Amino acid sequence: MIKPEQQNTHLTELTMDTLYHLGLDTAMDLKGIFGDTKYVCMSGSAERVEDFAHQCNTELGLGIADADIVPIGKTERYSLYKIGPIIAVSHGMGMPSIQILLHELTKALMYAGCEQVAYIRIGTSGGIDLAPGTVAITTQSINGKLQAEFVQDVLGHTRTWPTEFDPELAQQLYDARENLPAAMGKTLSTNDFYEEEGHLDGALAPGYTKEDVHTFTETLRDMGVINIEMESLAFAAFCLRAGIPAGMVSATLTDRFQGDQIDFSKQELMTFSRNAQQLVINFLRTKIV
Amino acid sequence: MIKPEQQNTHLTELTMDTLYHLGLDTAMDLKGIFGDTKYVCMSGSAERVEDFAHQCNTELGLGIADADIVPIGKTERYSLYKIGPIIAVSHGMGMPSIQILLHELTKALMYAGCEQVAYIRIGTSGGIDLAPGTVAITTQSINGKLQAEFVQDVLGHTRTWPTEFDPELAQQLYDARENLPAAMGKTLSTNDFYEEEGHLDGALAPGYTKEDVHTFTETLRDMGVINIEMESLAFAAFCLRAGIPAGMVSATLTDRFQGDQIDFSKQELMTFSRNAQQLVINFLRTKIV
Repeated sequence: MIKPEQQNTHLTELTMDTLYHLGLDTAMDLKGIFGDTKYVCMSGSAERVEDFAHQCNTELGLGIADADIVPIGKTERYSLYKIGPIIAVSHGMGMPSIQILLHELTKALMYAGCEQVAYIRIGTSGGIDLAPGTVAITTQSINGKLQAEFVQDVLGHTRTWPTEFDPELAQQLYDARENLPAAMGKTLSTNDFYEEEGHLDGALAPGYTKEDVHTFTETLRDMGVINIEMESLAFAAFCLRAGIPAGMVSATLTDRFQGDQIDFSKQELMTFSRNAQQLVINFLRTKIV
Repeated sequence: MIKPEQQNTHLTELTMDTLYHLGLDTAMDLKGIFGDTKYVCMSGSAERVEDFAHQCNTELGLGIADADIVPIGKTERYSLYKIGPIIAVSHGMGMPSIQILLHELTKALMYAGCEQVAYIRIGTSGGIDLAPGTVAITTQSINGKLQAEFVQDVLGHTRTWPTEFDPELAQQLYDARENLPAAMGKTLSTNDFYEEEGHLDGALAPGYTKEDVHTFTETLRDMGVINIEMESLAFAAFCLRAGIPAGMVSATLTDRFQGDQIDFSKQELMTFSRNAQQLVINFLRTKIV
């Protein structure tokens, strides 16, 4: 599950490992629950993950009774479903939240004896020069300083990790687009929705103008950035470091050249999110049926 | 609600403001819903917030029927309850997640015409040289570089904000401890639970030893840091910038000098969390009854 040089030998000192935020521990039959996992699909909200779990079951013909699609572990922080060889799990918003999930879920799969598992994030984002509803597939994530690195402050020392996504998986996801609008490129990943993404509709005086935002968005476009979201940088860095193939697919809900407000109807937004989910299901169909 | 120099004039250009992540908008009667708000109490999880809302209702004798304590807006990202002059709302995990809430909730209260509202975060944390269950009250938050500043990368420029909590509110919270174990001091606020907090039980080889963690924890103690969590830095910075009095109270679930694992029973952890909630209710009782 994890490449040799990144395996954490401290874990062998624990008599039991409590995966606190997931509500799981190694006294449970993790092998029985998770042993056959091949794909982990993650999204921000518990609601979208539950929707995706049902969609997988139906479209991939997994034949699970609806009543059996229930969360595993506690749902206080994340909601985790298992449908056949697929885990669907929510990660909340932002890199700190997805990082906790990545550590604990990866330990669960390691204890379960899983070997080859790919992680795919299905997110929402602001698009750059893309029609809302387009599915963006990320090749590389960049940070707020426009550098392709994830920066950590660990015990007073700064360390950085590269943030490339698996190129083969990205291409396979793109090839699964069928009739869906899709694009492949870089993603800006921020630690703040309102100001680091350059929105003008936050609570406080932003300290920049509409023109500043336009210029910045042009800079991003010229670098090959097609969308902006808040998790892919940490996600790419963790998976690359661990040796886990990672893919990143996201629905675009706005075009950042057009403005800030997400004022589509609930139905339209659902369709945009569903486009990204559908693309991943098209991909999974080629792999697991 | 917001001090003059930080008011966002761009908002006057909007015909309607959609507070997307809260599921609220300015076509709703925000004044009717939120107009009498005096205190906002926030915690990470929806579950603890619901518990706190009921505890407020009972202990402050607000006389609201249990069936009327229901979430306002959508619950996909946050869960928000209003009990009398108090809002109880969840913020998820990490600074990016709480930042989105702070922007949207502050706009909601501004549109509702609120004037004097204090924000209090009731969190969980790792303690430093404190018995688990101690309630830590924060005077100042520091970042992973051990500096008292919140750093943003905005449109390619770095900017920093100070991270002091309201000293009067901190003292009043401390004075409301009654028989609860409590301490007042600085808080380290990280963007990562496993590695930036120096845990040895993450999924990957941490790149530091038990001795490194001990030395770092001693450095923190010597700086007057009493606990470690993941939101207070952004929370303090936002509130100080806006001119909103902010207080930060958190339960300590571990002593970082003793190790990583949170292996208390569910009942013990509930008691620890309840200590922090109880301290805030003691404080609110002196203010609003």
